[in-house]
Amino acid sequence: MAGIYRSTRYVLQNAFGSRSLPGAVRFYSQKPDPAPLINVDVDSKTGVATVTMNSPPVNTLNTPFLNEMGGVIKELEKNKTRGLILTSSSNSVFSAGLDIMEMYKAPRDQMAVFWTTLQNTWLSLYRTGIPTVAAINGHAPAGGCLLALSCEYRVMVGPKFTIGLNETQLGIVAPPWFLICMREAVGPRQTELALTSGKMFTATEALNIGLVDQLVSNKEEALAEAHKFIARFAKIPPLARKLTKEFTRQEGIKYMEEKMLDDLETFVDVASSPSAQKGMEMYLEALKKKST
Amino acid sequence: MAGIYRSTRYVLQNAFGSRSLPGAVRFYSQKPDPAPLINVDVDSKTGVATVTMNSPPVNTLNTPFLNEMGGVIKELEKNKTRGLILTSSSNSVFSAGLDIMEMYKAPRDQMAVFWTTLQNTWLSLYRTGIPTVAAINGHAPAGGCLLALSCEYRVMVGPKFTIGLNETQLGIVAPPWFLICMREAVGPRQTELALTSGKMFTATEALNIGLVDQLVSNKEEALAEAHKFIARFAKIPPLARKLTKEFTRQEGIKYMEEKMLDDLETFVDVASSPSAQKGMEMYLEALKKKST
Amino acid sequence: MAGIYRSTRYVLQNAFGSRSLPGAVRFYSQKPDPAPLINVDVDSKTGVATVTMNSPPVNTLNTPFLNEMGGVIKELEKNKTRGLILTSSSNSVFSAGLDIMEMYKAPRDQMAVFWTTLQNTWLSLYRTGIPTVAAINGHAPAGGCLLALSCEYRVMVGPKFTIGLNETQLGIVAPPWFLICMREAVGPRQTELALTSGKMFTATEALNIGLVDQLVSNKEEALAEAHKFIARFAKIPPLARKLTKEFTRQEGIKYMEEKMLDDLETFVDVASSPSAQKGMEMYLEALKKKST
Repeated sequence: MAGIYRSTRYVLQNAFGSRSLPGAVRFYSQKPDPAPLINVDVDSKTGVATVTMNSPPVNTLNTPFLNEMGGVIKELEKNKTRGLILTSSSNSVFSAGLDIMEMYKAPRDQMAVFWTTLQNTWLSLYRTGIPTVAAINGHAPAGGCLLALSCEYRVMVGPKFTIGLNETQLGIVAPPWFLICMREAVGPRQTELALTSGKMFTATEALNIGLVDQLVSNKEEALAEAHKFIARFAKIPPLARKLTKEFTRQEGIKYMEEKMLDDLETFVDVASSPSAQKGMEMYLEALKKKST
Repeated sequence: MAGIYRSTRYVLQNAFGSRSLPGAVRFYSQKPDPAPLINVDVDSKTGVATVTMNSPPVNTLNTPFLNEMGGVIKELEKNKTRGLILTSSSNSVFSAGLDIMEMYKAPRDQMAVFWTTLQNTWLSLYRTGIPTVAAINGHAPAGGCLLALSCEYRVMVGPKFTIGLNETQLGIVAPPWFLICMREAVGPRQTELALTSGKMFTATEALNIGLVDQLVSNKEEALAEAHKFIARFAKIPPLARKLTKEFTRQEGIKYMEEKMLDDLETFVDVASSPSAQKGMEMYLEALKKKST
Repeated sequence: MAGIYRSTRYVLQNAFGSRSLPGAVRFYSQKPDPAPLINVDVDSKTGVATVTMNSPPVNTLNTPFLNEMGGVIKELEKNKTRGLILTSSSNSVFSAGLDIMEMYKAPRDQMAVFWTTLQNTWLSLYRTGIPTVAAINGHAPAGGCLLALSCEYRVMVGPKFTIGLNETQLGIVAPPWFLICMREAVGPRQTELALTSGKMFTATEALNIGLVDQLVSNKEEALAEAHKFIARFAKIPPLARKLTKEFTRQEGIKYMEEKMLDDLETFVDVASSPSAQKGMEMYLEALKKKST
């Protein structure tokens, strides 16, 4: 039923051209859909979807949000969407990354559900045959950077926003698949320097090391450049493109397919360790001070 | 017998200095050698061989051509050649890549023989202890680019020729070992961008991303620079060099040694798929239109 | 007893501020410690250790020297040192690399002990959780380059010194873990070019390909920049940093953990081969001529 409803909604959506989907896809709930955390606009002419993260204030990645994003990607794949542009409804934050509340003082079970959802949604985004672009219109630390790195191209609004895998600053460790994504963008040398210091890069620094591909001055330009990137693939047979992408991303895909459970266990062990919990506590206190 | 004949011919060749081998090496035929598809000139002073692909009009890589090239490499190795420069007798094409006629409407058996020959010849070129340079004096799409990438150094005649792994444009997929070669030259980031879009690079673009190492303005210069590159190794003990090269190329060598049969099966499945066949048909039709 | 002695000495050392350790750590000997081959100064304020190789004339890496270095690293780890700066007491040589006398006309047993010590000491340096910097204040060929590459950052005194993995010039082969280290710094393309030709890079060339990170004009500046690099990590929780470094260096660590014995056997076979022995002989003769 839900499937039919979603399909119908999608068809309506296409019939009426580029508009937000009235409700987001939820696979794990029998309850009526809550307000969507992610908006999807499909351009009826080009078939390119703009996927706008809309979970104020900072698009933190928690289980419901990640479930919704996973559902959106699957839906777009089913509908043979020609491109996916990932962006944010916020004026200052692309995504603040993993929701610390899924880890701070959380029971191991909750952490496990959270991490598994992150793993699956990440893999969906990372390996999708749809051409993907991140239009990074705000800060993108940690998991926010991971989302951007999982796309095929990154256009960033500069110069004031920052991006990076800053996990070590919180006393946690970016897992190997975060590292693989970073490495594919900037190479092993810059990856080690960035991750051991938890460095946040300015947009200009990010461009210089290849962490993003283009700088623009506002969101509209970012979306325009994202559409241009996707247009490169207009005449490329989608199946050949999809298989090629699977080959180029084989290291990350293989890691997740073969090591998913090890990765989960390591995450829960490390995140529940006293030193990581202490790091999160200090981080949360620092946030509180900032906001008062 | 054939072996002795070839050796004799080779010795004669050396005795008379730098000249084309009168006939090419054929392993799979009892019939008298046809006209050579590949000419070999060994410089009697330096011991460096210029291997000129001479299968007009565009040096397409089909089973006979690849067999001959494999034989040439083995022969040069036996004779302790000090360098191998791969170039083309054409004024406009280095090699147009894999011969579509080995795939288009071809029976699976033919495809399998073709692919196995390509795998073996590629591995011979890729791992040979002889220092190798591609003097790219014409367009080098797809398999033509692979040949260039399998050498240790690339000098390209610019600016008008192009080079790239453009397989996706035909609806086919560059296999993992093509990708490994590309990655070793330009890194994972540029490899994904190049392969998913099937981009053909101008000589200048190729230089900028490291797909070629040097630009020159004509074939003579290309050959001169190729000789210079090989001269770097004049005083390097060949065994140490050969083992070092095997180490640096271990990923590709290991892939081919361990996955040869899987790779073959995947190729035949993908190439015989309706979408790939359709892509080839469209390509051949486009070629026909161009030539009329 | 030795442990207590060493700890006591270390505490004294810290109590009296930044000074050379009065004797070096030896694990493999019951005899009284000989004069140290390596001096260790720990800055009492920052907790950063300057580790000065002091085995005149050229800090060749032989079994006693490597044992001592392995001991120093373990000692510094036990004492939660905040940084390790590796440098040389010589004015012209950082380290001349592996001691040929451990290989030239050496029995296989001696070669095996030597190589195992090198493997273990290298792994200690490569994977230590302590932030590491090489302050390269002299030439760093072969094993000297390996030491520098095993650190997280390289500051080189220029322009007159040189650095590189020049093994092939001696007819020996840099093993896969040397290659992994080189690749992590400069990528696969430059690694193959460098190793197949055994190229020694000037400081400027090294900077250009990323083999070193910074050029300075003298040792004092090198040490100052090294301290600055380590200061980047002042606020990073050490456990998270250590685990992150283990992830980024997983390829090398895994190689050594899994292939240690194969690697040993290959080394002894290759180094004892007539061609490698001949290469060393020629090298030693060339050295003799130079010094007379």
